Amino acid sequence: MGIVVQKYGGSSLADATAVKRVAARIVESRRAGHDVVVAVSAMGDSTDDLLELAEGVSPEPPARELDMLLTAGERISMALVAMAISDLGCTARSFTGSQAGVITDSVHGKAKIIDVTPGRISSALADGHIVIVAGFQGVSQDTKEITTLGRGGTDTTAVALAAALGADFCEIYTDVDGVFTADPRIVPSARKLDRVSSEEMLELAASGAKILHLRCVEYARRYDIPIHVRSSFSELEGTWVLPASAMVDDQGEAMEQAIIAGVAHDVSEAKITVVGVPDKVGEAARIFEKLAAAQINLDMIVQNVSAAATNLTDISFTLPRTDGQTAMQALAELQAEIGFESLVYDDKVGKISLVGAGMRSHPGVSAKFFSAIASAGVNIDMISTSEIRISVVVSEADVDAAVGSVHTAFDLDAAEVEAVVYGGTGR
Amino acid sequence: MGIVVQKYGGSSLADATAVKRVAARIVESRRAGHDVVVAVSAMGDSTDDLLELAEGVSPEPPARELDMLLTAGERISMALVAMAISDLGCTARSFTGSQAGVITDSVHGKAKIIDVTPGRISSALADGHIVIVAGFQGVSQDTKEITTLGRGGTDTTAVALAAALGADFCEIYTDVDGVFTADPRIVPSARKLDRVSSEEMLELAASGAKILHLRCVEYARRYDIPIHVRSSFSELEGTWVLPASAMVDDQGEAMEQAIIAGVAHDVSEAKITVVGVPDKVGEAARIFEKLAAAQINLDMIVQNVSAAATNLTDISFTLPRTDGQTAMQALAELQAEIGFESLVYDDKVGKISLVGAGMRSHPGVSAKFFSAIASAGVNIDMISTSEIRISVVVSEADVDAAVGSVHTAFDLDAAEVEAVVYGGTGR
Repeated sequence: MGIVVQKYGGSSLADATAVKRVAARIVESRRAGHDVVVAVSAMGDSTDDLLELAEGVSPEPPARELDMLLTAGERISMALVAMAISDLGCTARSFTGSQAGVITDSVHGKAKIIDVTPGRISSALADGHIVIVAGFQGVSQDTKEITTLGRGGTDTTAVALAAALGADFCEIYTDVDGVFTADPRIVPSARKLDRVSSEEMLELAASGAKILHLRCVEYARRYDIPIHVRSSFSELEGTWVLPASAMVDDQGEAMEQAIIAGVAHDVSEAKITVVGVPDKVGEAARIFEKLAAAQINLDMIVQNVSAAATNLTDISFTLPRTDGQTAMQALAELQAEIGFESLVYDDKVGKISLVGAGMRSHPGVSAKFFSAIASAGVNIDMISTSEIRISVVVSEADVDAAVGSVHTAFDLDAAEVEAVVYGGTGR
Repeated sequence: MGIVVQKYGGSSLADATAVKRVAARIVESRRAGHDVVVAVSAMGDSTDDLLELAEGVSPEPPARELDMLLTAGERISMALVAMAISDLGCTARSFTGSQAGVITDSVHGKAKIIDVTPGRISSALADGHIVIVAGFQGVSQDTKEITTLGRGGTDTTAVALAAALGADFCEIYTDVDGVFTADPRIVPSARKLDRVSSEEMLELAASGAKILHLRCVEYARRYDIPIHVRSSFSELEGTWVLPASAMVDDQGEAMEQAIIAGVAHDVSEAKITVVGVPDKVGEAARIFEKLAAAQINLDMIVQNVSAAATNLTDISFTLPRTDGQTAMQALAELQAEIGFESLVYDDKVGKISLVGAGMRSHPGVSAKFFSAIASAGVNIDMISTSEIRISVVVSEADVDAAVGSVHTAFDLDAAEVEAVVYGGTGR
């Protein structure tokens, strides 16, 4: 059998008992004949504890030193997992991100993986060891500094290792059973999906589904790595996130996909409206250039047709709430120059997205979606679509009702459907 | 001005407040014009916390993984110290043992430093940074594995860095004011020494003085590094431990040394007596070969002249109590073969040592020493001497009385004396 990469998050490694349970699962995979490589996060809340220590000594710690500090968390958990494995009669070798060959750029706190050179991992596997790798961390190519990958970092580490090692698949162990058709906390009738395409999973992750981070899904899609998202607290099959190449049946035929994978929602964004922008060529561009210069990533953008009488238009966009004040300040600096009327900031908004590869070939999905939202008495604020997704912005207070209504309208409680969203792992 | 290396132990880095106080001291040295390199231990009891975690997952964790785990402790403290320094307006760069070029052999848990290649440290100093290095750890030359140095490791790291960087001196910050003529907890009249020769300090450390570890003093002596042992809790001058080359005054004349540096004691050893060994050539050798094969380091060894009537002799030796049962077992296996009568194990013993370079030229020191012990009503069990040291083994219960009596007999409470001992830093 080939190589399997597994990832265990902090909630699966909360204490000694949890570490031993994880070790037992790993040993089980090894004894089933796989070569096993494991990426681990820091134990439970230990990252928060380290951040608290940092706050205790400095209000604005240098990013390099913060990375040095935080990487101690995975170092501790990986050594403990290796010890627990050894106690079960197998041998394990733990490796830091740097030792494992996880090469990144130099952006401390949110470095990107640019290469993986897993020579030491391969040697350890060849010697019969189980390999445990510190997730969330790497070493920068140019400066050889220790870096961290930011949110979703350990998932990304696992998938990157799977790609570099030519693993058969990557198992992401978490504290939920898989990917659901909607967040079960909002829609109790939400169903676990058996499988979802990586294309759909990408849209779901980008739409607020927290179970897998966007970067990890992108990586898996690019390198054709099947991901199995499952719970470390049960033996149940989870959800397979499959690249297009794997969406075929035993006869090599493309598997039939459900029209809709699931409903995702996101209440982490704010909406800004620039009111009364002169409708001249280049004005909108200046607004977005200003925001780009402030390192702000926008999500949905809507510009209305200008009223003929005034020749003024309104531009609305959504962005992470955490960037809200920075964006408002940047735009205020631009007001005199562009001459728009005012800025409206609203952080009581929510986004609801319907995702499904079948949308391409099934007309009428949008109409049904909007009508489901209307029937819940919810007003739509903004609309944006991609080939396999429709998103709307509504009031934050209306999100739960709208999600429930859409979920029901598309028969997602029934047996033939597919996939999304909830839970959430920090790194 | 040149390079100064400082070492701060765990007790000086107990919490955020302590970390900030240490940072302030470091910045003070930097602002006085020195290039500053700092070796730090893990914070307070954090090493014990990590050991407890390890015990929670495995009764006998693999040494490699234990080293991986424990090195997280210094990683955390060095990052925090660097952050606190940055908060005071200086820049600092922290480096792990591996990054700092601390190259060791491959013996996990008690690796020896075999080389220091401080290229990254020198670059960081040249760029104007303060450098913080994780003490107690290195990377093995052959296998590139993370190693720890064992007891006294951070002191040794500091001195090794001082030697490799050509530092002017090495400051060892601890929780006591310096080296005393005896343990102040036993002899309240003990005095702090202004200076002591590294030769004497070596004997003191080997005799149970815990303030500096033997390996660190040996390293400093070999590379001619002056050590300044002082408290991180006061501004007082501590004790200078000076290599022979530095024991000269401003005119280049050898400084006059006191006859006696101090009195050390050690209650960490046990005594084993092999009773009734046939007095034949090679029998003693077989006993000691057996113990060496069991990796046991012996300290004092005494063999009595054999009684003419029986042609049997007794061999007694001391060894770390922690090795006591292993040694007894190894010897028991030898009993039939050698035919000695019995083994006697005693772990209620203590060793008292008088150390002083002046002993060489002052006869009568031994006589005065034995008589001081006798006058305290204490019986002497074993005696061993070196050129500048006399040691005796007595009952553990008699140690305090004997140390006090010797201290008084040699006028160590008075003003003209020199050096030793107490406190203790784990690493």
